[in-house]
Amino acid sequence: MVIQTNISQAKQLVQKARKNGKSVGFIPTMGALHEGHLSLVREAVDECGFVVVSIFLNPLQFSPKEDLSHYPRDFKSDRKLLKLAGADLLFYPQAKDFYPSGFSTYVEETHLSKVLCGKSRLGHFRGVCTVLVKLFNVINPDIVYFGQKDYQQALIVRRLISDLNFSLKMKILPIVRDKDNLALSSRNAYLNRSERKESLCIYEALALAKELIDRGEKNTKKIVSTISKKISSKKRAKIDYIEIRNAENLNPLDKVTGKVLIALAVYIGKTRLIDNIVLNVKNK
Amino acid sequence: MVIQTNISQAKQLVQKARKNGKSVGFIPTMGALHEGHLSLVREAVDECGFVVVSIFLNPLQFSPKEDLSHYPRDFKSDRKLLKLAGADLLFYPQAKDFYPSGFSTYVEETHLSKVLCGKSRLGHFRGVCTVLVKLFNVINPDIVYFGQKDYQQALIVRRLISDLNFSLKMKILPIVRDKDNLALSSRNAYLNRSERKESLCIYEALALAKELIDRGEKNTKKIVSTISKKISSKKRAKIDYIEIRNAENLNPLDKVTGKVLIALAVYIGKTRLIDNIVLNVKNK
Repeated sequence: MVIQTNISQAKQLVQKARKNGKSVGFIPTMGALHEGHLSLVREAVDECGFVVVSIFLNPLQFSPKEDLSHYPRDFKSDRKLLKLAGADLLFYPQAKDFYPSGFSTYVEETHLSKVLCGKSRLGHFRGVCTVLVKLFNVINPDIVYFGQKDYQQALIVRRLISDLNFSLKMKILPIVRDKDNLALSSRNAYLNRSERKESLCIYEALALAKELIDRGEKNTKKIVSTISKKISSKKRAKIDYIEIRNAENLNPLDKVTGKVLIALAVYIGKTRLIDNIVLNVKNK
Repeated sequence: MVIQTNISQAKQLVQKARKNGKSVGFIPTMGALHEGHLSLVREAVDECGFVVVSIFLNPLQFSPKEDLSHYPRDFKSDRKLLKLAGADLLFYPQAKDFYPSGFSTYVEETHLSKVLCGKSRLGHFRGVCTVLVKLFNVINPDIVYFGQKDYQQALIVRRLISDLNFSLKMKILPIVRDKDNLALSSRNAYLNRSERKESLCIYEALALAKELIDRGEKNTKKIVSTISKKISSKKRAKIDYIEIRNAENLNPLDKVTGKVLIALAVYIGKTRLIDNIVLNVKNK
């Protein structure tokens, strides 16, 4: 595996692989890699001749109040994991090269970005969209891989790829969970032991929502209210949002029907965690 | 010359040319072609193995109050001129394909776009940036050609190419003028005979500014004031802006020094015309 911080040299390496007839798979990350990321890398290794992983802690997608400065970093471990998973190129650009003085061009999705995490994290998705357009242009991949944990992000990226006429396929892979069903996240490292225990309420709430829907409950307000109570009963949990929306366009729903997204963001102590499930609900 | 309205088929044609070892030159236009556009096409034909011209009257860069609906259109003439000039592909996408229902991703430059035409034409450069990212992704050119008449646009596009890591060169070619020095523009077609005569005050004002500077005048306010009077003396002329700015970063200038842009936008009757000159002024 080659490690490259230089933008144009990374570009050249990918071009060379492409000239050698290899298809290019790409997984953009912010490092602090876990099994969720690695599942994407392994899928890419299965499907593509040349697999690029970027590690870039994108300052543009953090607001001044957020956790950029103490976001988990472990380059040595990341490097080792990526090598083991079979990545060919680790692209590791520096912020000063990626956002040089005078940088002033931004990419923004204006519909799907306005709800859920976009409402709590102003400017977050603008930062995500901008860095992804840059990364797509540097790497020029055939297939990009995203995780379903960031479901809203994945929808926005799908929209961006289509709207801006990028020639690339996108794959969204399932959430990878710990044994106790907590969705893997780099931010889980923030949790102390008691917070880690309470964080289980997040998946339990989603499982309860699914159970209610399986039993025939259609009223989204009722479902949200029931699972909110479950989470609020925990001492360290504070709900940012719990919402049920159309899983394609993120429009709000009164009745659970069709492909629905149940998504939530919950603070456990100071750590903001997100999770979601997507259900296909048939009208009976 | 092939004419293609279909986005993915246009993309394939360019890919085929590239596979055959040809470099790709690209000139994005809104049609109603004149010698200004054709000078770009000819340069591209000289330099590249495969030359693509797009004609797309981009609704996104017109505000509701502007002249989209009656912007000059002459596809037959455009097609003939491009064939004669040696273009290989005329890409002619339809607005409904380029901005399908649900389109919601936009590209915006936030510094250079805020002054000059960006101040008078809110959202204009956002429309320009968005459509250019789309076109660059469809055509994937090696070199793009722009005219200096839209000097601010050219600076913004140069910024966008760099900021978003596009792998393409940009060439900015000189303004092409009529015999009487009026800068060629599709909008000149709007002018009636007396307006056409009065429109000469625009270039005369720029020439006067150059003369004042050549004679040693450094005070930008004085220069702007003098040439404003020249234009205001015309019955049908109404100044939108006349400004002298740093030609690299568009910062305002008190003293004329270095590479300076003298740019103006003037309504002649209902027609808004722009023009500019760039001077290298040495400190004596």
